[in-house]
Amino acid sequence: MQNSIQHINKAFESKVRLGIMSTLMVNEKADFNSLKEWLGLTDGNLSSHVKGLEEMGYIDVQKQFVGRKPYTSYHITDAGKIAFTEHINALEALIKSMT
Amino acid sequence: MQNSIQHINKAFESKVRLGIMSTLMVNEKADFNSLKEWLGLTDGNLSSHVKGLEEMGYIDVQKQFVGRKPYTSYHITDAGKIAFTEHINALEALIKSMT
Repeated sequence: MQNSIQHINKAFESKVRLGIMSTLMVNEKADFNSLKEWLGLTDGNLSSHVKGLEEMGYIDVQKQFVGRKPYTSYHITDAGKIAFTEHINALEALIKSMT
Repeated sequence: MQNSIQHINKAFESKVRLGIMSTLMVNEKADFNSLKEWLGLTDGNLSSHVKGLEEMGYIDVQKQFVGRKPYTSYHITDAGKIAFTEHINALEALIKSMT
């Protein structure tokens, strides 16, 4: 029990971050508005969490213009994949310990 | 995705609370010191989280004396079992959505 708890990563505790990371695990990239819509978030809530994840090096942000419109997309980094996989493994171990 | 995220309960997001609740799902009761030791926590950290969980009606606290020593034990309530099961189901659905 203690062991699986200790491998839970505080960076991914919030459900918004779980949502962002799991989306980027299965989609090569996702743009801001799609993430917002898929996860049912506000602009401010999504912004603050992607910023946090970017600062920790778990996701990368790409900003470009499509015509005159800004287009922001996100993808998971290798470090993000490793860290999130470890987090998910810890959650799975915790769930398993209860059954 | 959005659906499983929305069923994640903010009350159980922190790893300390995940640890407390999953311990009390599989043990009829647990005393303060055992929980502290099993989960590798400090007094203050454990105290604040059990207080939070108690206030939400998810766990019950029983205080008694064994001889002259105070003995505090915790058990999960029916509401706690239902809410935590829903939380775990949401995490499992999230994990499944990635594979």
